Amino acid sequence: MENRRYDEGLKKLNEIDGQAGRKVIDSLRSIAPDLAKYIIEFPFGDIYQRPGLDLRTRELVTVAALTALGHCQPQLKVHVNGALNVGCEPAEIVEVIIQMAVYAGFPAALNGMFTAKEVFTERGLIAE
Amino acid sequence: MENRRYDEGLKKLNEIDGQAGRKVIDSLRSIAPDLAKYIIEFPFGDIYQRPGLDLRTRELVTVAALTALGHCQPQLKVHVNGALNVGCEPAEIVEVIIQMAVYAGFPAALNGMFTAKEVFTERGLIAE
Amino acid sequence: MENRRYDEGLKKLNEIDGQAGRKVIDSLRSIAPDLAKYIIEFPFGDIYQRPGLDLRTRELVTVAALTALGHCQPQLKVHVNGALNVGCEPAEIVEVIIQMAVYAGFPAALNGMFTAKEVFTERGLIAE
Amino acid sequence: MENRRYDEGLKKLNEIDGQAGRKVIDSLRSIAPDLAKYIIEFPFGDIYQRPGLDLRTRELVTVAALTALGHCQPQLKVHVNGALNVGCEPAEIVEVIIQMAVYAGFPAALNGMFTAKEVFTERGLIAE
Amino acid sequence: MENRRYDEGLKKLNEIDGQAGRKVIDSLRSIAPDLAKYIIEFPFGDIYQRPGLDLRTRELVTVAALTALGHCQPQLKVHVNGALNVGCEPAEIVEVIIQMAVYAGFPAALNGMFTAKEVFTERGLIAE
Amino acid sequence: MENRRYDEGLKKLNEIDGQAGRKVIDSLRSIAPDLAKYIIEFPFGDIYQRPGLDLRTRELVTVAALTALGHCQPQLKVHVNGALNVGCEPAEIVEVIIQMAVYAGFPAALNGMFTAKEVFTERGLIAE
Repeated sequence: MENRRYDEGLKKLNEIDGQAGRKVIDSLRSIAPDLAKYIIEFPFGDIYQRPGLDLRTRELVTVAALTALGHCQPQLKVHVNGALNVGCEPAEIVEVIIQMAVYAGFPAALNGMFTAKEVFTERGLIAE
Repeated sequence: MENRRYDEGLKKLNEIDGQAGRKVIDSLRSIAPDLAKYIIEFPFGDIYQRPGLDLRTRELVTVAALTALGHCQPQLKVHVNGALNVGCEPAEIVEVIIQMAVYAGFPAALNGMFTAKEVFTERGLIAE
Repeated sequence: MENRRYDEGLKKLNEIDGQAGRKVIDSLRSIAPDLAKYIIEFPFGDIYQRPGLDLRTRELVTVAALTALGHCQPQLKVHVNGALNVGCEPAEIVEVIIQMAVYAGFPAALNGMFTAKEVFTERGLIAE
Repeated sequence: MENRRYDEGLKKLNEIDGQAGRKVIDSLRSIAPDLAKYIIEFPFGDIYQRPGLDLRTRELVTVAALTALGHCQPQLKVHVNGALNVGCEPAEIVEVIIQMAVYAGFPAALNGMFTAKEVFTERGLIAE
Repeated sequence: MENRRYDEGLKKLNEIDGQAGRKVIDSLRSIAPDLAKYIIEFPFGDIYQRPGLDLRTRELVTVAALTALGHCQPQLKVHVNGALNVGCEPAEIVEVIIQMAVYAGFPAALNGMFTAKEVFTERGLIAE
Repeated sequence: MENRRYDEGLKKLNEIDGQAGRKVIDSLRSIAPDLAKYIIEFPFGDIYQRPGLDLRTRELVTVAALTALGHCQPQLKVHVNGALNVGCEPAEIVEVIIQMAVYAGFPAALNGMFTAKEVFTERGLIAE
């Protein structure tokens, strides 16, 4: 059953985060492979498998939280990509980040927006 | 035009937060009425008026951010109510808060959940 | 195997947090029993089972983190109890919290210390 | 020389925080008297003795930081009192807290304002 | 009236942040021009227009908050420049940042100081 | 006596942080030498001199706090080195950082782990 969590988690990680997710997992191999295993099993094998919320909303609330926390720009980058991968519109992501100015202040919103801008530029969604 | 922002903001505040929102505004009267004015004009007169995201999603991302930040339980309480007022299901709010365990840790998720529990109990959605 | 994680997690939760841990789990029953399940399975069934660090050190680093974060006083209270339950000396807990003044500022250290004081007083370790 | 830091720190603590400061110091006696000693020696014996900034500005920047951090309401209460004790106008304190909405979000500003309101009410500066 | 907020906000942004402020605004053009508009209208068109606090104090409390929050180094850089632009002495900025060691810990103060050092070096106020 | 705090603090800083600590101190010389002095005197001259906790535990709780706070990667790097310098095993440091996923979320744990990876790689403890 543990294997099922891992296997389904890995599938979900691939679906949401694609190459960026695998890169995070790979980068842990030499120092903490168990942290990689937990990431696959708990967030992706448990939480993102839950039926109560569609993946688009799950990604938008993650973008909100990571923008508000402010110290997680690499993970925000992964999840802006993830949000786009599961079908969120760029404009929706922008809306969520703008709204964070209200709850976490303008600096957090600005830094989140610049991270989104990097992703949008890399994917050719906006001109640099 | 400034008046329009205030008037439409007040309408939106009433629609989303109802009595709880007005109570916050009233409680600022003796010390900082201008902060109340800004809350009506900027979050509710500008941000929540924007068409790019439906109110249900706006409230869910706010619940996510306030849960993750951790030091905003009174505002989280207002917005769990707000989320219910604009049509979110209790189960959706619970999902968002559970997901925050991944991004902000279990203590933040737990404290957010206990705040949601207060609201759900007050509204008779769950037994105490 | 999932059951093993849950069963061993529950045993560990009882060993470390005793009644306080069970109370947290119980208080989630009416709103989010799955969050309770995850707490038992992941922190206590996975992390606290790991052999690389003794339980005393695990509790001291948790006390450090919760003191530094500042917005987790209920969880800090549980873990000051937990630290005592697994054999930490009150003086060691006090040292960890004092040290947090350096890394998270005096207010975080002070609030952490007042939470520890509550626990020490409840357990009759100091006079009120 | 160590004694000089302590003695001058205690004098400064009394000047700025008065009874509220002494209460904090007293409340540490049974659990961590050394933390009390460090508070007197370092913040008040070293930092608040420095000539580069007048006490009024020192208190206003402290009010800003504690409001922005969000998890330090007891210390914010002490320093709103401190700001008034060293000659800040209530309106200046209100301005600083309003400005924090920009940098730390509206919830942090609101919670800071409600703490200031408690102090202003206790001192009879505003009607409840 | 909305235009007046924008126009006066832009003037204030130029006065305080000069080229650095305009650069932030420009960098939002391709992704979220409305966030730029809100920055001009709310912080600079509303808050920094208020008479209750001089611009020097407004900038010092902002430096305090951004140093304490810790995850806003780009904005801290803009506001260290802003503080100098409106007449704060470098030594006053240094005092504010040192004081943050007390309230947010030494790491936050250190990171804030290194950001100030970048600005002071760029402006030729200190040798690298 | 003040000199004794400074002298013993400097010795302790050298013992724990070695060259990395001295580099931080040196980098403050042109802007805020007093902040360097306080770092030597308070954390290293007062706190790390205290007998109540061995240096290995002091470093592990510091690694925990800096990982959880999330915005202190340069200081975390210094203290991962410090932990190794005073005899902590790399595996113990990894355990502490993994555990932070529970209390501060996976992004904080991941960013802490990548900082530890940098240190371990620089010291030849793991292959890049």
